[in-house]
Amino acid sequence: MYHLPQLKKTTQINAIAVMTSGGDSPGMNPAIRSVTRAALNQGVRVFGINRGYSGLIIGDIFELKSRNVTNIVQRGGTILKSDRCEAFKDPVVRHQAAEILKEHGIGGLIVIGGDGSLTGAHLLFHETGIPVIGLPGTIDNDIYGTDDTIGFDTALNTALEAIDKIRDTAISHERIFLVEVMGRNSGHIASQVGVACGAEMIIVPEIDFTLETLSFTLANQRAEGRGSSGIIVVAEGPRPGLTYRLARQLEIDGQTAGVCILGHIQRGGQPTGHDRVLASCLGAAAVTYLLAGETDIMVGIKNSKITAIPLLDIMEQKKPLNPELVQLAQLLHK
Amino acid sequence: MYHLPQLKKTTQINAIAVMTSGGDSPGMNPAIRSVTRAALNQGVRVFGINRGYSGLIIGDIFELKSRNVTNIVQRGGTILKSDRCEAFKDPVVRHQAAEILKEHGIGGLIVIGGDGSLTGAHLLFHETGIPVIGLPGTIDNDIYGTDDTIGFDTALNTALEAIDKIRDTAISHERIFLVEVMGRNSGHIASQVGVACGAEMIIVPEIDFTLETLSFTLANQRAEGRGSSGIIVVAEGPRPGLTYRLARQLEIDGQTAGVCILGHIQRGGQPTGHDRVLASCLGAAAVTYLLAGETDIMVGIKNSKITAIPLLDIMEQKKPLNPELVQLAQLLHK
Amino acid sequence: MYHLPQLKKTTQINAIAVMTSGGDSPGMNPAIRSVTRAALNQGVRVFGINRGYSGLIIGDIFELKSRNVTNIVQRGGTILKSDRCEAFKDPVVRHQAAEILKEHGIGGLIVIGGDGSLTGAHLLFHETGIPVIGLPGTIDNDIYGTDDTIGFDTALNTALEAIDKIRDTAISHERIFLVEVMGRNSGHIASQVGVACGAEMIIVPEIDFTLETLSFTLANQRAEGRGSSGIIVVAEGPRPGLTYRLARQLEIDGQTAGVCILGHIQRGGQPTGHDRVLASCLGAAAVTYLLAGETDIMVGIKNSKITAIPLLDIMEQKKPLNPELVQLAQLLHK
Amino acid sequence: MYHLPQLKKTTQINAIAVMTSGGDSPGMNPAIRSVTRAALNQGVRVFGINRGYSGLIIGDIFELKSRNVTNIVQRGGTILKSDRCEAFKDPVVRHQAAEILKEHGIGGLIVIGGDGSLTGAHLLFHETGIPVIGLPGTIDNDIYGTDDTIGFDTALNTALEAIDKIRDTAISHERIFLVEVMGRNSGHIASQVGVACGAEMIIVPEIDFTLETLSFTLANQRAEGRGSSGIIVVAEGPRPGLTYRLARQLEIDGQTAGVCILGHIQRGGQPTGHDRVLASCLGAAAVTYLLAGETDIMVGIKNSKITAIPLLDIMEQKKPLNPELVQLAQLLHK
Repeated sequence: MYHLPQLKKTTQINAIAVMTSGGDSPGMNPAIRSVTRAALNQGVRVFGINRGYSGLIIGDIFELKSRNVTNIVQRGGTILKSDRCEAFKDPVVRHQAAEILKEHGIGGLIVIGGDGSLTGAHLLFHETGIPVIGLPGTIDNDIYGTDDTIGFDTALNTALEAIDKIRDTAISHERIFLVEVMGRNSGHIASQVGVACGAEMIIVPEIDFTLETLSFTLANQRAEGRGSSGIIVVAEGPRPGLTYRLARQLEIDGQTAGVCILGHIQRGGQPTGHDRVLASCLGAAAVTYLLAGETDIMVGIKNSKITAIPLLDIMEQKKPLNPELVQLAQLLHK
Repeated sequence: MYHLPQLKKTTQINAIAVMTSGGDSPGMNPAIRSVTRAALNQGVRVFGINRGYSGLIIGDIFELKSRNVTNIVQRGGTILKSDRCEAFKDPVVRHQAAEILKEHGIGGLIVIGGDGSLTGAHLLFHETGIPVIGLPGTIDNDIYGTDDTIGFDTALNTALEAIDKIRDTAISHERIFLVEVMGRNSGHIASQVGVACGAEMIIVPEIDFTLETLSFTLANQRAEGRGSSGIIVVAEGPRPGLTYRLARQLEIDGQTAGVCILGHIQRGGQPTGHDRVLASCLGAAAVTYLLAGETDIMVGIKNSKITAIPLLDIMEQKKPLNPELVQLAQLLHK
Repeated sequence: MYHLPQLKKTTQINAIAVMTSGGDSPGMNPAIRSVTRAALNQGVRVFGINRGYSGLIIGDIFELKSRNVTNIVQRGGTILKSDRCEAFKDPVVRHQAAEILKEHGIGGLIVIGGDGSLTGAHLLFHETGIPVIGLPGTIDNDIYGTDDTIGFDTALNTALEAIDKIRDTAISHERIFLVEVMGRNSGHIASQVGVACGAEMIIVPEIDFTLETLSFTLANQRAEGRGSSGIIVVAEGPRPGLTYRLARQLEIDGQTAGVCILGHIQRGGQPTGHDRVLASCLGAAAVTYLLAGETDIMVGIKNSKITAIPLLDIMEQKKPLNPELVQLAQLLHK
Repeated sequence: MYHLPQLKKTTQINAIAVMTSGGDSPGMNPAIRSVTRAALNQGVRVFGINRGYSGLIIGDIFELKSRNVTNIVQRGGTILKSDRCEAFKDPVVRHQAAEILKEHGIGGLIVIGGDGSLTGAHLLFHETGIPVIGLPGTIDNDIYGTDDTIGFDTALNTALEAIDKIRDTAISHERIFLVEVMGRNSGHIASQVGVACGAEMIIVPEIDFTLETLSFTLANQRAEGRGSSGIIVVAEGPRPGLTYRLARQLEIDGQTAGVCILGHIQRGGQPTGHDRVLASCLGAAAVTYLLAGETDIMVGIKNSKITAIPLLDIMEQKKPLNPELVQLAQLLHK
């Protein structure tokens, strides 16, 4: 699948640390396992940091041996726990964190998380010189520079399994259901889920709409009597409550629709095969890059290849949505 | 598992009809299959009625052959579709319905649904003399006189699978989650789900509580530092919004909790083995009772035995909740 | 669901031990959790024994605290590990085992396992006076005196999910598949799986057959052109290879059939809701019985009630198969 | 995800046909749906051919309307059924097939299947001039020129779910299990499954081995006392029985291992999100290529892009295995 980077160990790093940060995502555990064992195989010691930056700044650090990561490849969540850490936005705190890492003899840090967590890593390196490598760990797949993120494929399948159940009721009662999926400000989950479930309509923040036109379009589609899944996929979007607002608009326009907010079930669960392979490859690659002297990069996937992306790019740019999937869903629903 | 009734065909019934009514539940399809084939095996013709009473009163009736129910045993939802029918509350409409059944030569009707649907069946028999047999088809398991209902076991497992995913995040972030499960006015789903997921607390409508005492108890439990699943199971209850109200109370008292409303995913999905066996046995038994001249009963399960319960009892009595499961969950959480 | 026994603690037991023995089954972990916490709630210490009798006889025993059983309710397998122990068939070894228990101050032993394991418990009590309580932990549901065993429901669903996948190929290729399920010398799994998957035929060791008549019957059924699932469920039975022998007979008679041996996937996996509730209730009940002075019994389920069955009965009697399910499957396949 | 080809309809094709051929794979149904609706949207009629080439040569052809493909996106197997057709190896038969297509006014054929099926399509075009487009439909992912095939991701996850269950027993009993996965002569499934399940060892036909050295290596690994999953993944390979032969060799060398042949469960089941999106994109692309005048190609994926590969290349070249995954699994198991 992915070709691993062929780099040699050129640094004198004797120990590295790994953490998971921000919202948990399925695949963080196989990533931790891969980082740990790839480093141990190079004779490098590995430390785990509990609760992301929150644990780092209080020194909640412990040595990871090979046995600690046995039989976690299939587990959801993260054995290192995770957290969002406000305090780490303070440069003083970041300097303290660097001191703690140095006290443990840690020569490099691997951070698995979303763009907020990777920003923290970038700042840590720039201000303190601690080498950092990021791994894209989020279900949202909204990180610039990588086609894929650890957890996205699992979340896609979790959402789909839920929708396949809702579909039974939608068909049996000939009802419409508005199903809200995660994705924060992006429609990456929604557009893939929508194609995969045969949605009647996909609503994403990247494509402008008004509630009135959505309701109107939907009424027209149904009046044409197309064979219908009854499923409308809605990305949660930046402002909470969109799905309920749409349901009310439909009600006003004479259509009743059920509402399902899939919510946190999308974050958990055993990682899929895809996410386990992805996490295993990226974890090993992160160690390779770090020991070869790279820093301030995220290791991701571009056109099926493992690639290094500068963390600065990730902070400054937004990943665009491919609108073709939304159009394809529309085409294939007819 | 269940012993089937040993009754002989004593009636002259040459054709029966079957419908699904009210909210759909997993297992309705194996019940339809069982009714159809058990009747055909006795030389009796079978008619399917689409959309429950709504289809009956407009004569949306078609003959079911053996092939029509091939490979539906594993399907969620109902191939006969379902509906809630307000019009059927009018006795005039029920008389029209009886006429339509007679026109098709239908000598008995099997209704698969919840207590509202079974009430309709009872009235139809009392006013028109059409023999009726009910089957308990609801995920809520809230029908008097039967220990089990078709769809309950599947809903239990669907809710559990969702909670097992939420648990990954609860553990990784050391957060509490309030998970709302279905069950209308009863806590049957909530109490079993709660025991099965190792809930910290189970909240059911049958046991009085105030938001303040719940919040207080929870704070105490957590202060004791017990090993915790982080999951609190809440039955939806008669008044919508309970789970959000509890979350707000917790917030006021200084605890943050995530909220997940499992919603309609609990109604769909492939039926479990238990529900398929249950539906297959009850479907065949319903035909046996009907052809032996029984009417105005529901065929259910009491102490692992197939039993007939008068429909009148079902209408007049409420199924009590066994509070021991709630207590057991509390005991086992410590 | 199940009413728990209302007994008082009458013994002076201060510590108990729990083990899992024989083939693992899904639900052993929630049973361990329930035993542990129910005892701790009574102020009784709990010891876990690793690897069943194999661990007992070498003193592989450790104290179980509440935290040790946190978040295991959903896990397959057994955290105490399991084993089949030949050495324990020797009375001398059993006496040594009793000494080890006494050294730890253990006043009673709870054994979770199949009939072989329960026989060991019975002998241990008879020869050494150590109070023992058995819990039926096996996927096979072949233990006399209980309607249900911990793990059976999960195995049923695991087999069904596999068959639902095989069915896709059976239908797409219009082929027959012989699917072998577990169950040792009994057809309990096969008969329920067969009804639940809509099998064309169910073959169990309790009902006599010859390969020739099976093949002949099947050819006839197919010649009649019935709507068919294409699935034939075969219980593994006492002599390995039955399924392959049947496939060869079909081949000789001009029918080609695929063979799938489901094998060990049926033993593992997260326990279903049913098995978790069952295990939780039985585990707590076992502690109640033990502390109330009972011994030499298994705690099981009879007609939906928790019941105590003398271990001697279990050893001496074979659980009969209800042939009605096999007949029902035949009836409903037509 | 995938960018769809931007081509214009340049042909006069008014009707196309679609078939599934060879072993079924999950995702064939969303591919059929996508082909059908993409063509209908261009004003082109669509015919479905039952049972692949077997149905074609007897004219088992029917018109596909939009409604025929409603709510099949989530279904395993293929609604068009499939078959392996020996007769189609005869050029005379292929000419008859072309006549049948012409009689129906069919101006192009889309074949979803493995390399054997695509070879048939190539010959049909070369000998008769009927435009053909292939889609890679096989779980084995062994087709030259495409990184991915429809069904591969689902099979990967199905195998993994089975192994995750076997792992419970492997851990509980501290046993080794040899798990045989599909893949015919290639190790694509085995290598990804192996990385994803944390296998101790992966055995694929592309990498030479002797039973003796495998057994020796395994004994060494276990003697080192590494934390172990207990799972060894074996690709079925060209000669049946490899897994049993390896088990016997291990037995001779003093290690007992369980054997699980996953078999046909890997072919069926609801397609994953990945496979549904892949199939939807490729199906629409196949129609675009066909209507733009392309022929004798397969539409596949190369570096995340939709690509056309000449069918001749597929017939003549074997897809190589990336050995890095096997090495990675070895590295990460330590």
